Amino acid sequence: MKEIQGGVTAAKGFLAAGVEVGVKYQNRKDMALITSTVPCRVAGTFTSNVVKAAPVQWDMGLVEKSPFVQAVVVNTGIANACTGKQGLDCCRAEAECAGKLLGIPAEAVLVASTGVIGMQNPVDRILVGIEKLVAAKSDSPEAAEDAAKAIMTTDTVHKQIAVSVEISGKTVTLGGMCKGSGMIHPNMCTMLGFVTTDVNISKEMLQKALSADVVDSFNMISVDGDTSTNDTLLVLANGLAGNEEIVTEGEDYDIFCQALHYITTYLAKKMAGDGEGATALFECKVVGAANKEDARTLAKSVICSSLTKAAIFGHDANWGRILCALGYSGAKFDPEKVDLYFESKSGRLHIYGDGVGCDYSEEEATKILSDPEVTALVDMHMGDAEATAWGCDLSYDYVKINADYRS
Amino acid sequence: MKEIQGGVTAAKGFLAAGVEVGVKYQNRKDMALITSTVPCRVAGTFTSNVVKAAPVQWDMGLVEKSPFVQAVVVNTGIANACTGKQGLDCCRAEAECAGKLLGIPAEAVLVASTGVIGMQNPVDRILVGIEKLVAAKSDSPEAAEDAAKAIMTTDTVHKQIAVSVEISGKTVTLGGMCKGSGMIHPNMCTMLGFVTTDVNISKEMLQKALSADVVDSFNMISVDGDTSTNDTLLVLANGLAGNEEIVTEGEDYDIFCQALHYITTYLAKKMAGDGEGATALFECKVVGAANKEDARTLAKSVICSSLTKAAIFGHDANWGRILCALGYSGAKFDPEKVDLYFESKSGRLHIYGDGVGCDYSEEEATKILSDPEVTALVDMHMGDAEATAWGCDLSYDYVKINADYRS
Repeated sequence: MKEIQGGVTAAKGFLAAGVEVGVKYQNRKDMALITSTVPCRVAGTFTSNVVKAAPVQWDMGLVEKSPFVQAVVVNTGIANACTGKQGLDCCRAEAECAGKLLGIPAEAVLVASTGVIGMQNPVDRILVGIEKLVAAKSDSPEAAEDAAKAIMTTDTVHKQIAVSVEISGKTVTLGGMCKGSGMIHPNMCTMLGFVTTDVNISKEMLQKALSADVVDSFNMISVDGDTSTNDTLLVLANGLAGNEEIVTEGEDYDIFCQALHYITTYLAKKMAGDGEGATALFECKVVGAANKEDARTLAKSVICSSLTKAAIFGHDANWGRILCALGYSGAKFDPEKVDLYFESKSGRLHIYGDGVGCDYSEEEATKILSDPEVTALVDMHMGDAEATAWGCDLSYDYVKINADYRS
Repeated sequence: MKEIQGGVTAAKGFLAAGVEVGVKYQNRKDMALITSTVPCRVAGTFTSNVVKAAPVQWDMGLVEKSPFVQAVVVNTGIANACTGKQGLDCCRAEAECAGKLLGIPAEAVLVASTGVIGMQNPVDRILVGIEKLVAAKSDSPEAAEDAAKAIMTTDTVHKQIAVSVEISGKTVTLGGMCKGSGMIHPNMCTMLGFVTTDVNISKEMLQKALSADVVDSFNMISVDGDTSTNDTLLVLANGLAGNEEIVTEGEDYDIFCQALHYITTYLAKKMAGDGEGATALFECKVVGAANKEDARTLAKSVICSSLTKAAIFGHDANWGRILCALGYSGAKFDPEKVDLYFESKSGRLHIYGDGVGCDYSEEEATKILSDPEVTALVDMHMGDAEATAWGCDLSYDYVKINADYRS
């Protein structure tokens, strides 16, 4: 596997665009398009929230029923959630407009929105935006970057990546981009994410790969524990790599899954580290757990704890809060048997063992906790299962950003 | 039922004290004592955290096995959690010391601690503190207030209340105090709470009343979603009111339960409103739910949402976040049928209905959301069940307090 330059236009046959439309934000790109020169297989996962935004409802229908899709239209600023029939009408109008301009059926056009809940999208402006997007679409790396920037909301950096792998003698490329810095939580990433690939794979195997993947990638991150109404992760595969179609498990499928996991884990970590107001990526790695599910539960509980996150922000080795978060996770264990370490590029420190705090140097701990990427490593000494979860610290800026997001 | 002055010394035969010991905090009262002139029945509920502080382990043993207890010793500053055998030895030393000075068995002395996790209590200083407490104990209202102040950590106000009721022709009094402003979460209040009463009741019925009560009082509040290692709620009943012993359900039991609920709900709301850094008490009342459990789940999900809490801090009517929190609570419902209102002493405003936002005045909404007590009233239109949960807003000060709590 090779990491390569670019994002959603890296794979053969994919074009993208990002343009300024003024849906709600001014003076920045706020609409994006991804499209393929040929029809694509699609797989998707969506928010588990009972309250599903109109575009989520639209896309779930297409992912389930459409044999092929060929484009995705995204707007930021307004989420088109809690918008009733008018919101669904907007999705249809977007799909029809993009379909007409691209010469494909409306049922081949996915839509996604992110932003304020409860406001109606300005349909006319959005349709003008789609015209601009179609005119601007290109397979250049710049177009991918434009798209990655256009889907940002409170993100401080755009997030994209691409890799290539060999599958049965053919070069297969995957590219991805995502946005999401608030409302990122286990149980579907609470974000928008798009992966494009030229792999030749059946729809069934593509969905299988994606569903298995998110459990240990996007579902292992959290910023604030809120699960949004708009979470959407889509993978489009157009088959142009020319590999023999993957229709079953086996070596080809495994290589594809590894590449997909590289992309999704990279994007998931980027999202966690760019959580609203975050100053550090906070990772919890649990090893020696009784089983995989416990490992995930324990790791997630730690990175979701507001008290722990505030301590990380303060570079304070308040390890009791980590023990505490492990303790209320729901997994059973013996606190006397747990070992806890803090680690970062500055080193590793044994913090807790045999039921009590270790005799460590607070100075050294503070040094480790002051790095931009901090890991709490927890050994449960109960078995062989492990899992890693990613979050961020809780800062003043998180509160500032969210106290008056709408204005 | 009559609300009366005082706290834990209001009921007959109860004495209290609060003194400065310097366990960790300086220049403030940091140890408290409650004791009764005669042995008491005791009931308790404790943290559901797997990691239980030493005093919690000690008290759970006594509540289960001791037929009677007669005193409670509390220290703040250090939680005596994750302290291994040395921590348990400290509990025993405290109980033996207090027992000797009060002329009661060590097995009649409960202990409680709150503060930093992972530090050992300074046993010698604590034993000196117990001597001071025993010397200072009094049945005066001032002694109750001293005790209520001594158990505070990051609380900004002390919290106490007392009521009296008539049970079978006798006046029965209940008094209570609590602390807790961070780490307050559903699944046991994550706090220290003590209720004293002179009611004559069997141990079995006392525990039954308490266990039924917390489901709709302390378990319905949250500050930050973290469940502490030290949560303890104890009720001591010494029988001095002289009513016929309550040994079964019936009118006497019901009157006692109502009085207990008045006390616990009052204290729970005070705790939520005094959450770390809180500027407002945020209440969510769910009505018309399909069943009681759904009503509780929905109400708690709203008051636990970091995004909603940050919006309340910003006086921002970002109702989409409330819909969103209802949506990921786990309860099933139709978003199109929900009605949402904001209300406070300034009025009530219909915010959302028929699947879309109402045409309300933002100015009026901001006015309501600027009051010190704000309610989100949600009608699910599915049945008759209702529940209320209490939390607080999420402010800069929450982060400040928790970023460097240990120093």
